[in-house]
Amino acid sequence: MEKVLIANRGEIAVRIIRACQELGLSTVAVYSTADKDALHVKLADEAVCIGSASPIKSYLNIDNLLGAAQITGADAVHPGYGFLSENAEFAERCLKAGLTFIGPKPETISLLGDKERARETLKAVGVPVTPGSDGKITTLAEARTDAEKIGYPVMVKAVAGGGGKGMRLIQTPDQLEELFTLAQNEAAQAFGSNEMYLEKFIDRPRHIEVQVLGLKDGTGVAVGERDCSLQIHHQKVIEEAPSSIDPATRDKMLSVSKRAVEELHYTGAGTLEFLYAGPNQFYFMEMNTRIQVEHPITELTSGWDLVKAQLLIADGKVPSAAPTANGYAIECRINASSAGQITGLHLPGGNGIRVDTALYQGYKVPPNYDAMIAKIISYGPNRQTAVQKMLVAINETVITGIETNLDFLNRLLRTNQFQQNQFDIEFIERELLPQSDSQ
Amino acid sequence: MEKVLIANRGEIAVRIIRACQELGLSTVAVYSTADKDALHVKLADEAVCIGSASPIKSYLNIDNLLGAAQITGADAVHPGYGFLSENAEFAERCLKAGLTFIGPKPETISLLGDKERARETLKAVGVPVTPGSDGKITTLAEARTDAEKIGYPVMVKAVAGGGGKGMRLIQTPDQLEELFTLAQNEAAQAFGSNEMYLEKFIDRPRHIEVQVLGLKDGTGVAVGERDCSLQIHHQKVIEEAPSSIDPATRDKMLSVSKRAVEELHYTGAGTLEFLYAGPNQFYFMEMNTRIQVEHPITELTSGWDLVKAQLLIADGKVPSAAPTANGYAIECRINASSAGQITGLHLPGGNGIRVDTALYQGYKVPPNYDAMIAKIISYGPNRQTAVQKMLVAINETVITGIETNLDFLNRLLRTNQFQQNQFDIEFIERELLPQSDSQ
Repeated sequence: MEKVLIANRGEIAVRIIRACQELGLSTVAVYSTADKDALHVKLADEAVCIGSASPIKSYLNIDNLLGAAQITGADAVHPGYGFLSENAEFAERCLKAGLTFIGPKPETISLLGDKERARETLKAVGVPVTPGSDGKITTLAEARTDAEKIGYPVMVKAVAGGGGKGMRLIQTPDQLEELFTLAQNEAAQAFGSNEMYLEKFIDRPRHIEVQVLGLKDGTGVAVGERDCSLQIHHQKVIEEAPSSIDPATRDKMLSVSKRAVEELHYTGAGTLEFLYAGPNQFYFMEMNTRIQVEHPITELTSGWDLVKAQLLIADGKVPSAAPTANGYAIECRINASSAGQITGLHLPGGNGIRVDTALYQGYKVPPNYDAMIAKIISYGPNRQTAVQKMLVAINETVITGIETNLDFLNRLLRTNQFQQNQFDIEFIERELLPQSDSQ
Repeated sequence: MEKVLIANRGEIAVRIIRACQELGLSTVAVYSTADKDALHVKLADEAVCIGSASPIKSYLNIDNLLGAAQITGADAVHPGYGFLSENAEFAERCLKAGLTFIGPKPETISLLGDKERARETLKAVGVPVTPGSDGKITTLAEARTDAEKIGYPVMVKAVAGGGGKGMRLIQTPDQLEELFTLAQNEAAQAFGSNEMYLEKFIDRPRHIEVQVLGLKDGTGVAVGERDCSLQIHHQKVIEEAPSSIDPATRDKMLSVSKRAVEELHYTGAGTLEFLYAGPNQFYFMEMNTRIQVEHPITELTSGWDLVKAQLLIADGKVPSAAPTANGYAIECRINASSAGQITGLHLPGGNGIRVDTALYQGYKVPPNYDAMIAKIISYGPNRQTAVQKMLVAINETVITGIETNLDFLNRLLRTNQFQQNQFDIEFIERELLPQSDSQ
């Protein structure tokens, strides 16, 4: 591997370019016409315009990306996150074009991209998934049996369901008697089917995910876990590593993740996402087959350089063993809520602060792409120190010319719930956002 | 301690303000008229103009600094480095004004500021100093005895000497016979005195320094050592931690430094500077009683936050124990070689990069102060990784509008000697600078 085409933009393209440069690999940036002045274009050894601003014409255009690799003589492609990073066809076409695809095999991407197949596959190799009915149920008696087996509370759901119709939260056997038939009737009316199923109800869980690496020799590494519970509409806002979950459950989560990587013959970096409801209660949601936005907090607390590890694994090399894990890291995602030119920029720095961004003063943030424009990461010996550093860092950050979420982050960081590490995946929506739907 | 006046400017003022903010301490910046738009002024809670651009009128003006503390109600003063940081009178006057001085006691500053008294004092507590004659010598026979005791090579020097007159490098006993009387005659002619002394000649040493902390309970901590051999005219350019000296000597250097801190009842942060010539050959030069420019590389490799430790110790608190030391850090000092407005600025970031600076785009670098405008620090699991990261980081740094040493750093980083960690304190001047004096 000598020349890597980075099929992405923004901070992750910059992150990958730096990792390539550290390893002595040449870099090819690709860019849309909207990104001609972007930082990743300036930092790469070569840059190729691959189309107009619309992602479908450029960053999602497989033919153009392969063409750029062809004309520059790139021999490898790093897809970053988003765009084509979990597109099995893209991975397949890269391989057919003789390029190293920096990620797992296309069939692995395909398998894990199908959420139902992924759940079944991971369940089969011993990863816990949300307990539920094995098949469809139509009678109260079946519901009773399943609910006992799963354990209360449970959700009753319509197989054909959606929009909350035919869905009930059941806390006790008495409630089941009372509500199952009601829900079933509602389902029958709404969808013309009375087929139901039961699922374990997970109350105010944390989102805990495990960073893994699969080496070419078949070894799986569970690098560490992250708590990504602070979300707005499923978009992560603040992430932390390590998590505060009980150590026994964490150990189990890491060991099943390692086993899954090995059973799947997974290669490269990946992430298993779980809901965590309490000791020994964790349930697999999905596995992402790419580098994640929030990978820096794992890098800081584990000593692994995850992007370099991706490159080395793809190149058939063995990434070196990492130093012992220690410390605590927090990432805040800085999002733009408007496009426009950055007229003033002061990013934080100094002891325990890492910034990953493609911003510079004078840069015009285009309206066409993801809102996330910078990641501010704090690192300290413990959570309290990392929190203090993040408060100082966010407070001193200045970005003028566009609207950002800096004020919101400042507010979130100052809540008791954040300070005391007492939150779940619904916390922000429940307690910090205006309730648009107060029915 | 509630409100800290920072009697400094530039990146170290910013560094101290951030540490105060993390600890919940209020901050008062002081500034000269040349610094009214400086970053430290913007980041502090309050700012007081203390005089005109000339340091003697502002940052060196004790009355004005104490006045600023008085009017803002500051109860502590952090002197940073340079300016009044090692001025015993300033420390004394702070104490008399009822302010906590963040540094050692005035008498300690005074003692260690007198290089000859410092050497004698540290020698007395077991710190090795450069071996030499105990007193003046006037005869060849005395010279022979001293040279045997010290060990060849030795320097013969005139007590009244200067400018190289009466000075000879002596490699062997035969050379002593040949050159001692010659040197003595030269001294007599030049200075009217034939009193001579001998000193151990240290060939191409490394500059190794030990970061220490003295706690209020009398405990000394040898935090770690740094290699600061890369210098131009005694100005450090690149520093590294840890050093590459042999472990047994390093252990001894750290243990004598710890003992010195305890014997001196030293409090706060300090640095013992040594010349290192080989296994078991290290010689104390001086002790600095302030935070050093290069403290970040020790922070990254030790886990100690040294500026926070200074603040906590001064406040009578005990800084918390640090995580285990690991990794390797390198600092490059970015110097301005002209004043002027920063018209374009791109500083590096991402994994393993720390930047300490007070620069921002549009800032006018004034001509009145120190040339050092930014510190770029790389950190990785080993030297090779830290070097790779620094190469990438320096290469991508853009500072336009003023002249800097970035090109020189790029050249220095690419020398075989740097890459292979084969250099001494004379390396840059001997091999990289034009020889202005080729006699």
